[in-house]
This record gives sequence, C-alpha cells and structure tokens, in this order.
Amino acid sequence: MNISTATKPHEQLAERLAPQMEQVNTLIRERMASEHAPRIPEVTAHLVEAGGKRLRPLLTLAAAEMCGYDGPHAVRLAATVEFIHTATLLHDDVVDESGQRRGRPTANLLWDNKSSVLVGDYLFSRSFQLMVETGSLRVLDILSNASATIAEGEVLQLTAATDLRTDEAVYLQVVRGKTAALFAAATQVGGVIAEMPEAQVQALYDYGDALGIAFQIADDLLDYQGDSATTGKNVGDDFRERKLTLPVIKAVAQATDEERAFWARTIEKGKQADGDLEQALALMAKYQTLEATRADANRWSAKARAALDTLPEHPIRDMLDGLADYVVSRFS
Amino acid sequence: MNISTATKPHEQLAERLAPQMEQVNTLIRERMASEHAPRIPEVTAHLVEAGGKRLRPLLTLAAAEMCGYDGPHAVRLAATVEFIHTATLLHDDVVDESGQRRGRPTANLLWDNKSSVLVGDYLFSRSFQLMVETGSLRVLDILSNASATIAEGEVLQLTAATDLRTDEAVYLQVVRGKTAALFAAATQVGGVIAEMPEAQVQALYDYGDALGIAFQIADDLLDYQGDSATTGKNVGDDFRERKLTLPVIKAVAQATDEERAFWARTIEKGKQADGDLEQALALMAKYQTLEATRADANRWSAKARAALDTLPEHPIRDMLDGLADYVVSRFS
Repeated sequence: MNISTATKPHEQLAERLAPQMEQVNTLIRERMASEHAPRIPEVTAHLVEAGGKRLRPLLTLAAAEMCGYDGPHAVRLAATVEFIHTATLLHDDVVDESGQRRGRPTANLLWDNKSSVLVGDYLFSRSFQLMVETGSLRVLDILSNASATIAEGEVLQLTAATDLRTDEAVYLQVVRGKTAALFAAATQVGGVIAEMPEAQVQALYDYGDALGIAFQIADDLLDYQGDSATTGKNVGDDFRERKLTLPVIKAVAQATDEERAFWARTIEKGKQADGDLEQALALMAKYQTLEATRADANRWSAKARAALDTLPEHPIRDMLDGLADYVVSRFS
Repeated sequence: MNISTATKPHEQLAERLAPQMEQVNTLIRERMASEHAPRIPEVTAHLVEAGGKRLRPLLTLAAAEMCGYDGPHAVRLAATVEFIHTATLLHDDVVDESGQRRGRPTANLLWDNKSSVLVGDYLFSRSFQLMVETGSLRVLDILSNASATIAEGEVLQLTAATDLRTDEAVYLQVVRGKTAALFAAATQVGGVIAEMPEAQVQALYDYGDALGIAFQIADDLLDYQGDSATTGKNVGDDFRERKLTLPVIKAVAQATDEERAFWARTIEKGKQADGDLEQALALMAKYQTLEATRADANRWSAKARAALDTLPEHPIRDMLDGLADYVVSRFS
C-alpha cells in the first residue's frame, strides 16, 4: 500500500479519486471540442488546462463515492459542474474587466468579449447536455435551480456591491449565488445518483452550501489580510474595486455619520485618494470587523462539518471534514 | 362567428392561439421576476415587452395544437423558447455592439455589458427550469442540443463572418445556429409533448429547420435589397459590418483575382471607402447572386411546406404553410 504524500484535504481527495478524475478530464476534453468552431477549444483550453484545483468536480465525485455509487453518472456530473464553473468564469471575465485569473491573463484579454460570452454559453449548453445524459429529472431540477441562483446572485451583486444599504442578508445571497449554490449542487447530486435517503441528500446540500459560504467569506477576508505572495491578490483589491464585502459591511453598519460619509465617497461614489485604504483598514480595526468576519467563516465551517454527521462513516467523509476546516484555515 | 381580420400568417396564428399566448405572456412575466435582483425585470421588460412577433412561442403552441395536445406543457415550452431567444438577443447585444434592436436602443446601451451577460444567463437558467417542469427527458434532450447548436453557430460566426474561405456549407451551419436550431426545436417539442409518432416529430423538426433557414436567408437578402422604411435597416449594413452572407459568398466563389482582392480588402481587412458598397452590389449583379440567393430561400421555403404533408390536416397546418411562404415573400 502506498503511503500518501498528500497533506491538504483537497489533495487527499484528488489522490483518492484520481482514476475517476482522469475520466472527468477526458470527458471535459471530449465535450469541449467542437468540430465546427475551433475557437471554442482555444478559449476553453486556456481555462480548463490552467490547473485549477478542480474543487467542484472533486466534491461531486467525493459525495458519490462516499455514498457507495459506482455507476457512470458521477463522472458526467463532475464534468457538468466544472463546465458550469468555467462558463461563469468566462462570463465574469467580461463583467469584471479583471486582468488576471488563476495567474494567467483572462480569456477576454487574449480573445475578446464576444468569445468569452459565446464560448461560456457553449460550455453551459454542453453541461446541460451532460446532465440530460444522466436521465435523472431530480438532478436536472437541482442543477437548473442552482443555475438560476448563480445568475440571480451575479445580477444582484451588480447593484449591491456599491450600495451602502447592502446588509449581511444581501451579502449572503450574493455569496450563495457566486459560490455556494454550485458547491451545494455538486455535493447534492452525488447523493441523488447514489439514491441516498432524503435526509442524507439534504445533508450533502447543507455541507456544500456551508462550505461554499465559508470559502467565500474566507476569500473576502483574505483580500484585506492575505499576503499577495500566497493569494496572488493585493491587499485591498476589493476596496479599490468598490466591492462591499463582509468586513466593510460590518464596519458600515456601525459607522458614525462621518465614517459613513467616508464609505459613501470611496465605495458608492468611487472617489478614492491616497490613504483611503489605510483609513478603511483603520475603521475595520476600530470595529474589529476582520475578527467578526473570521468568526462568521468559522461558524459556517462548523456548520459544514456538522452536516457530515448525518452521512455514512467513510475515509472520504474525513477528508470532507478536513476540507471544511482547511478553507477557513488559510488565514489562521 | 367573428370574421378574422388577420391577413399575415403569423397574425392568423396569433389570433387563433390568443388564449394560450396570453398564458405564455403571464408565465413569462412571472418567471422574469426576481425577488432579489430588481435589475433583472428592468432589463428583460425592455426586450420582452418590446412587441416582438413572438414567432418562436407561436410555433410551439401551433405545433402542439395541431397535434391535438391540450395539456399544460405547451405554454411552458413556448415560454422556454422565448426565454432562450431573449437570452441570445441579450448576449448578441454585447457581442455586436449594435445600437438598435427592434427599433429601440439595445439593453447594453441602457444598462451595460455586465447586465446583458448576466441577465441573459438568468433567462437561460429560467428557461431550463421551465423545461424541467415538463418532466420530459426527450424535450430536455432536444432543447439542450438546440442550445449547443446555437452557441456553436454563434462562435463559428465570429471567425467565419470575415473569412473569405467561408463557403455555403459554413454559412448554412451559422444560420442553423443563429436561427434554425431554435425554430426546429420550437416546433419539434410541440409534437413530442403531444406524443406524436416519430415520423411526425421528425416532420415538425424539418419544418422548423427549413423555415428558420428560409427566414434567415431572406433576412440576409433584404439587407441588400430591402427598403429601410419597412425593414428598419439600411441597405448594405451587413457589408459595412463586414458580415459574409450568402449574396457575397456566392460572388466571392466566382470572383476573378481582382474581384477577390476587392472582397479581401473590404470584408477581411475592413478597409472600406466611398463607392465600395456600390462596387459590391455591382459584383452581386454581375453574378446574379441576389437572384440565386432568393432561389435558395424559396427552395428552403418549399422544403418547409413539403414537411407539413406528413402532418395531420388542420387549419393551423394551413397557417404554417402560409408562414413558410410569407417569410420569403417579404422581398417579392
């Protein structure tokens, strides 16, 4: 028996599920191809081969394996969620005018907005074909609802991100759309194809949902306290891009009139000057919002781990437990 | 009994199917709404209320009615195809930087690219939810394949539109993606939910496919010979936008070296000067490509009408027959 060298939970999952993941990658390459439009694999190869962690397909494979499933649909659904994820990245690229994604130039700098939009649509259609191949209406229902939640969350973010009235409830809704909806669907469908009892299917949903929220809150926190060498982001990018995330929302909620005017100028109006980031960080320190945000992330992580109690004992369950811990430990 | 005042075939269909169409419109308004993201109905109302002909949902309702279906799914699927159509219009707006759509400013001038992309995604997800509600895997299969064909055709058009190597086969593929795939799916699913025999389901597909191709070829022809008062387009818009459509493709295929250099300069390189449109029209006249294009459109129209022979005799069948005639009669 090989001694595992993987230490991080997602690496353990990747190692354990390597044969299935190989099939997922083959299927992704197959379905990305287009006989007629060579532009498609050009654009997608860039994203799909860029060496992302493939966290979402791993979640689907993990859920199915943990539930004892060994049919062909887990691989299809893992490819499905990766396609949906890649499609949203392509559409985000159009949206954010962001210059970097996973450390490489984004597709819309290499190609153009047109290609990003339409190739994203193509991948979304391909994901839809893959789900239909499972023949499960329940799976289609879950993934169509997740798609609507994702799109709604992204639209909500357009208006909420720079609006000081955005409170924690709206933030949570945006986060569910951006991240948690696909995590939750990814784990839930693994249980559905394994024909698990409803309580366990729900537990898989709850795990993915809470994991996704913890993951996104941690990401937003890292923006203000990560070091750019490990995160690939500069401290305060969200502030400069006028994105209201949890640490700022918590500071706005407690702001004096003068502080509120500061946030209105820098976030709502986007009129930023030298020293503003430092001032923003000082206000977050005054109200200890980074600590409060970290506590929120930890609460969601604990919720994810608690959901696992309903699921069968399994080595993969332990890895998923570790993963819920890991996503919030990046800043500890 | 009321005497019908509708004279055009799509008006006859709209009159005949008015009660169902009312339900479609109600369903569209319901599903367009978003509790959380008010931006969504703002953007879509603009398109959905803009008074398009609703041709695609009418085709679904017509096919279902002609096949004797009277359950609830026809209305759902009619709304589905309208949502898919509206989503592609929104994504086209991003793509084409076109300033007008149905005589109004496009969404991306009133809002922004972000909203167009993400609200399009939302409508696409909503359409997907509606199809799932029919509980028919066959319907899901048809519409997921149509979605992939649409996206692939749109991507193909990106590279093919300005490439002189684009031949009639590639043009046909683009047209299937842009127009015919959704027409064909719209009519086919009407037969599927009515549980028609396979030969008739195929005939409905063939009708929609040929109708869509005839419609698009006629549109491309009108660009060179329509009058802007009735079409709302200026003669030669496609030429100025460097879009290779059938009349030009036929002229390029027969071009002398010198003529080919003209097309390479104006279409491939986009270096256009005064008098170039007149020169392009002269070359089309030299090879009679407008006449040949019109003959192609008529051939597809005849093919659509022939497909109807397989279907049951019905007043709606006569209207569909008239519609196939009408789409190519706009230029006669």
